Amino acid sequence: MEKGRLETFADGIFAIAATLLVLEIAVPHVTHGGDLGEALLDLWPSYLAYATSFLTIGIMWVNHHTVFRQIRETDLVFLYLNLGLLLMIAFVPFPTTLLADYAWGDEGRAAALAYGTTLTITAVFFNSIWRYAIWDRRLLRSDADPREVSGITRAYRPGIPLYAGATLVALVSPRASAALYLAIALFYMVSSSFFGRDEAVA
Amino acid sequence: MEKGRLETFADGIFAIAATLLVLEIAVPHVTHGGDLGEALLDLWPSYLAYATSFLTIGIMWVNHHTVFRQIRETDLVFLYLNLGLLLMIAFVPFPTTLLADYAWGDEGRAAALAYGTTLTITAVFFNSIWRYAIWDRRLLRSDADPREVSGITRAYRPGIPLYAGATLVALVSPRASAALYLAIALFYMVSSSFFGRDEAVA
Amino acid sequence: MEKGRLETFADGIFAIAATLLVLEIAVPHVTHGGDLGEALLDLWPSYLAYATSFLTIGIMWVNHHTVFRQIRETDLVFLYLNLGLLLMIAFVPFPTTLLADYAWGDEGRAAALAYGTTLTITAVFFNSIWRYAIWDRRLLRSDADPREVSGITRAYRPGIPLYAGATLVALVSPRASAALYLAIALFYMVSSSFFGRDEAVA
Amino acid sequence: MEKGRLETFADGIFAIAATLLVLEIAVPHVTHGGDLGEALLDLWPSYLAYATSFLTIGIMWVNHHTVFRQIRETDLVFLYLNLGLLLMIAFVPFPTTLLADYAWGDEGRAAALAYGTTLTITAVFFNSIWRYAIWDRRLLRSDADPREVSGITRAYRPGIPLYAGATLVALVSPRASAALYLAIALFYMVSSSFFGRDEAVA
Repeated sequence: MEKGRLETFADGIFAIAATLLVLEIAVPHVTHGGDLGEALLDLWPSYLAYATSFLTIGIMWVNHHTVFRQIRETDLVFLYLNLGLLLMIAFVPFPTTLLADYAWGDEGRAAALAYGTTLTITAVFFNSIWRYAIWDRRLLRSDADPREVSGITRAYRPGIPLYAGATLVALVSPRASAALYLAIALFYMVSSSFFGRDEAVA
Repeated sequence: MEKGRLETFADGIFAIAATLLVLEIAVPHVTHGGDLGEALLDLWPSYLAYATSFLTIGIMWVNHHTVFRQIRETDLVFLYLNLGLLLMIAFVPFPTTLLADYAWGDEGRAAALAYGTTLTITAVFFNSIWRYAIWDRRLLRSDADPREVSGITRAYRPGIPLYAGATLVALVSPRASAALYLAIALFYMVSSSFFGRDEAVA
Repeated sequence: MEKGRLETFADGIFAIAATLLVLEIAVPHVTHGGDLGEALLDLWPSYLAYATSFLTIGIMWVNHHTVFRQIRETDLVFLYLNLGLLLMIAFVPFPTTLLADYAWGDEGRAAALAYGTTLTITAVFFNSIWRYAIWDRRLLRSDADPREVSGITRAYRPGIPLYAGATLVALVSPRASAALYLAIALFYMVSSSFFGRDEAVA
Repeated sequence: MEKGRLETFADGIFAIAATLLVLEIAVPHVTHGGDLGEALLDLWPSYLAYATSFLTIGIMWVNHHTVFRQIRETDLVFLYLNLGLLLMIAFVPFPTTLLADYAWGDEGRAAALAYGTTLTITAVFFNSIWRYAIWDRRLLRSDADPREVSGITRAYRPGIPLYAGATLVALVSPRASAALYLAIALFYMVSSSFFGRDEAVA
């Protein structure tokens, strides 16, 4: 039950954070003689940033679910680690706006670094939650299949290095970094759809 | 259960997106000598756009429910198609603001096109979800009534052409297009209340 | 189940609309030499409007629950009446801002009228939902106690005239009208706590 | 069931209020020649205020859950006390913005006082809810363990004096006060993780 309420609370924060992303897209102010159509096309970095963050939050929500399917109960440390994860998820709209407004212009480096740092810390919390839960099978369901558990561990392993790597790319090319954040989300969705059905999510 | 959690997550995004629509309506700034009452009446395009999007999201929520009543389980492709649908639903407040601010003025064409394109893509996701679920009865409940299933297919068929048509109308008359978006929602509500009780929703 | 999902969706919109109210309160911009404490005290109309709308939405949520406890199932007309109610509930943050910004100044009349009209229409939807459900016991649970049902009908009767009356007061005194909206909510809470436990809510 | 719906409604408001906190962080406007990285580092008071409020709301959510685990049913007074608590929780984003924008500058006193007053009133509602529920075991589950109940009473006792104390510190040093609000949340999390597992939360 406790587990169920934490799950519901987390679901709420994932859903709200994803839906608040749209507030980031500033409605253009076009006066007489301006061209709204052109102004809307110029907003493509905002659409890209919106899609990147929405899909990333969506994937993290799916993965959060995968973790919770394997656990039996929660304890306070697990609860607070989840609170840390949710604090980062709820924070995502802020660096998303930075990415949209700056990543493709002159001040792109700081924006892409801020976005990547946020996702990297989020991935660290995510991995901590999983490792804390499986350590000594502390919070695992007694009937959790060891092969499935190690499959999840394997599936979550690339998260931190991928996001840390894309963050470091920002030092060289903020645009490549911004493209990578979207590519990671899309690649994850495509690869898990084809190969991951039995272990990672479901 | 998985199905239940996706349903809950989707419900959350439908509800939040609908409730965020109100933030689109800018409170008028009236100074001494101005007339707040008149300024409030002048906001009628915002009220219309608010009602259009709120009812449209509400109807899509009802239809989403209808789909989920027929399915037995989800898989990752179905999950990601839903994520795409939700990405579009959560996006609706943005073109709604465009519609409210521009559809009845000089730059109406781009605004009505943006709104209609959003709803058309949403309808495409909606139909993809349904067709993916029923293809080869992949995700259907084993006891799903074939007549009910084909009734839903029939009921969802006009969605894409209706929204694509109203979008094209924007090229000729943005105002007619904006009126059509509301008319589609109202017509759907009235007709389903009278005729659709047994097949489309319920 | 259908009933349960509509209930969850409605709960979500009630909760989100209530929580969005805080965005209405504009953080004062105080520069060197200004006095933040004074600026915060000057915001009392915003605090009052926030409390009025939060409590009103909370009471309507409680009443919505009371209705749903008596019904057995939903149909599409009932669903769309609820959608209309939720459209009004989600709209409340807008007139709340008007009330906060204008009700105590020169343009108070239009603000208090807009607020009262919103609540009156909301009350009309609320009563329509209840009357539609009980008409010919259409949607009532078969074991619904007739005395409890008529108790609810009696308890909901004053809603429309009270809000319509407070709205008309705005024509004479917007301030009295604004005070009445809060007084109605507080009076309802106090009186139902003392007398209403057995019939109206619970 | 009633209890369950109030719990769900409360969970929704806790989750939404926590997620809205991010809107408080204003995206810096950096023009050519400015330095976005520096501007982002200068926002540290916003990050601190965000973390403070997010964790505080999270802890209050956990505690709210602890209360509800012990109660059997609700009544209207209990419901309205909860509405009061939720009104304060949903209000938190406003003083959080004040804390972020002013606590470390010249007008820090009013900001830290406003923040602390909000949390103190919240703690008063929290304690009222618990004391009302346990008074004469009015709303307690019949099998509620007296030792667990008095353990919760003991665990909640420091809440009001701690927040009231940190509020008074604002009169002397707004910065110390702001730091204390975060310290209280962190201290609570650490101490409950080590010692509180069996009585306070779980």
